[in-house]
Amino acid sequence: MRHDKEYTKILSLFHFLGPAIDAILADRYPTMKISSVKTFLLNLQQKLITAIEKLDEKKFLQDTWDRAQGGGGITSVVEGGSVIERGGINFSHILGKNLPPAASDGRPHIVGSNFEAMGISVVLHPQNPFIPTVHMNIRFFVAKSKSKIRDWWFGGGIDLTPYYGIDGDIKNFHRTLKESLDPFGSHYYPQFKEQCDEYFFIKHRNEARGVGGVFFDDLSTPDFQTCFAISKSVGLSFLPAYIPIVKQRKDTNYGKRERDFQLYRRGRYVEFNLVHDRGTLFGLQTQGRIESILMSMPPTAKWKYSWQPDKDSPEHELTDKYLVPRDWASE
Amino acid sequence: MRHDKEYTKILSLFHFLGPAIDAILADRYPTMKISSVKTFLLNLQQKLITAIEKLDEKKFLQDTWDRAQGGGGITSVVEGGSVIERGGINFSHILGKNLPPAASDGRPHIVGSNFEAMGISVVLHPQNPFIPTVHMNIRFFVAKSKSKIRDWWFGGGIDLTPYYGIDGDIKNFHRTLKESLDPFGSHYYPQFKEQCDEYFFIKHRNEARGVGGVFFDDLSTPDFQTCFAISKSVGLSFLPAYIPIVKQRKDTNYGKRERDFQLYRRGRYVEFNLVHDRGTLFGLQTQGRIESILMSMPPTAKWKYSWQPDKDSPEHELTDKYLVPRDWASE
Repeated sequence: MRHDKEYTKILSLFHFLGPAIDAILADRYPTMKISSVKTFLLNLQQKLITAIEKLDEKKFLQDTWDRAQGGGGITSVVEGGSVIERGGINFSHILGKNLPPAASDGRPHIVGSNFEAMGISVVLHPQNPFIPTVHMNIRFFVAKSKSKIRDWWFGGGIDLTPYYGIDGDIKNFHRTLKESLDPFGSHYYPQFKEQCDEYFFIKHRNEARGVGGVFFDDLSTPDFQTCFAISKSVGLSFLPAYIPIVKQRKDTNYGKRERDFQLYRRGRYVEFNLVHDRGTLFGLQTQGRIESILMSMPPTAKWKYSWQPDKDSPEHELTDKYLVPRDWASE
Repeated sequence: MRHDKEYTKILSLFHFLGPAIDAILADRYPTMKISSVKTFLLNLQQKLITAIEKLDEKKFLQDTWDRAQGGGGITSVVEGGSVIERGGINFSHILGKNLPPAASDGRPHIVGSNFEAMGISVVLHPQNPFIPTVHMNIRFFVAKSKSKIRDWWFGGGIDLTPYYGIDGDIKNFHRTLKESLDPFGSHYYPQFKEQCDEYFFIKHRNEARGVGGVFFDDLSTPDFQTCFAISKSVGLSFLPAYIPIVKQRKDTNYGKRERDFQLYRRGRYVEFNLVHDRGTLFGLQTQGRIESILMSMPPTAKWKYSWQPDKDSPEHELTDKYLVPRDWASE
């Protein structure tokens, strides 16, 4: 009985203090500016577009779109470039009401909240089979009650999908990602690298999609400033991690054999994105902007029945030596 | 009180009669032979392979496989034919234990049963863009408790996915399917046709996959003989429905424009099969034989950002006039 009385007391105190607690919660993020994340992502988008355009003779097409339910984006696509055969560098900012339980990511206190989700998504499918396909995503999620922030987190990552494994290229890629994370603590890279290997795995083929990179989600500790800085650092490592590979390999000679293998392996990319990728499926199920979501599809893909490369061929080495988790950064 | 007593009496009577009821249930299908369905499907598979081989200079490759958990199949694939660019005519027979609730199709009494599932699946992707892609599936499912049959049903259908709409071809196709069903009752064709339009719909594109055909599932009334006869009739209508189109269109001239459009539309086929098709997803999730399941993939597919055909072009007509439900059989 005593317990019940005390409980009632605490409850009434809680109701009384509710607005004050809200204010304190909001004060936990005094320097958190949603707009600063948006500005960073929009600037990063333009920076990447400019850098890729400098390598190619083709300009990106930029499509600005609005979403009836709130928000919008800038979809930016290149097709038929001499370096990038098809690719997208997209920004979107989605406003929503009444967050469904399925999207609350194990956070029951934000079910029913208003929310904002913004992000940049990059997929580049190069023409030359010796340049890997690359993918990056940096996203920021905020749940609000009225205008107050109730929760937030960052997610994202960068990963590489080669057709022909070239050790030096993959090592440099991983080392650049590691260097972008090490200033925040030496545990980040190994943890994010492992999460990347786990996520980009084609279960039905029992095969990795590529050689990994870094992947993180639900990043909200220790504080907004650090998480934003980590996400920025990963985003800004895209060009130093990928561009050297493009420059080095874009003029490598290749023939029908390499092209065929590239198209065949792109089939795996399609399978992963349409069967397993949570972002793609969430987009398709929620009536997202289809053409923006499916910019991740390759320009062309091939399927061949039970095809197996010859033993000891570079095509066989790909699955054997490269599509297995390796400690690339310290090899 | 009286009610409870009576209820207990009925229950004990039920427990007492249980084995007898089982025997009666099994007696409901005195003439049901699972092996006769298997024989039909295996014969149909060879009949179709022979017929397609006669049109093409290429032979099908036949792969017989066993499944560690019970059952197996014959996967039969052609690639690079002059008529069929890639296609499969597959038979499989799967034995399983402990049917999961998800696969019991709203039949709680068969959860945990042993089961047998057998079927033939056909997908043909022709070379010539004026020949539509075709798909057929005939399947038979049996749930058993010990060796007694507890439930069973047939499912399947045939549907057509043209790249260029040709009214006469589509009308003849639908009429042939209608004729295969009309002897069993005039309600079958309209009902199965509607189910086909509903099932083969690419939700994320808000667009039909093709011009439909017939599709049925859970077919278990009025009795085994009739359901088997209906399934047989649909299966046997495949050649008369499709072969005349192939013969008529296989030498039609086409150029880069038609080929490009075919490859672009095949991207939609990939999207439907990997995102929406229940059979494909069930197969991938249950570690089915991947290369047999994915024989439905086209040999090559393309994606182009926000591509729209010119107004009044045949490519525009496809979505406008053909990928909409129409009463093809009586037009």
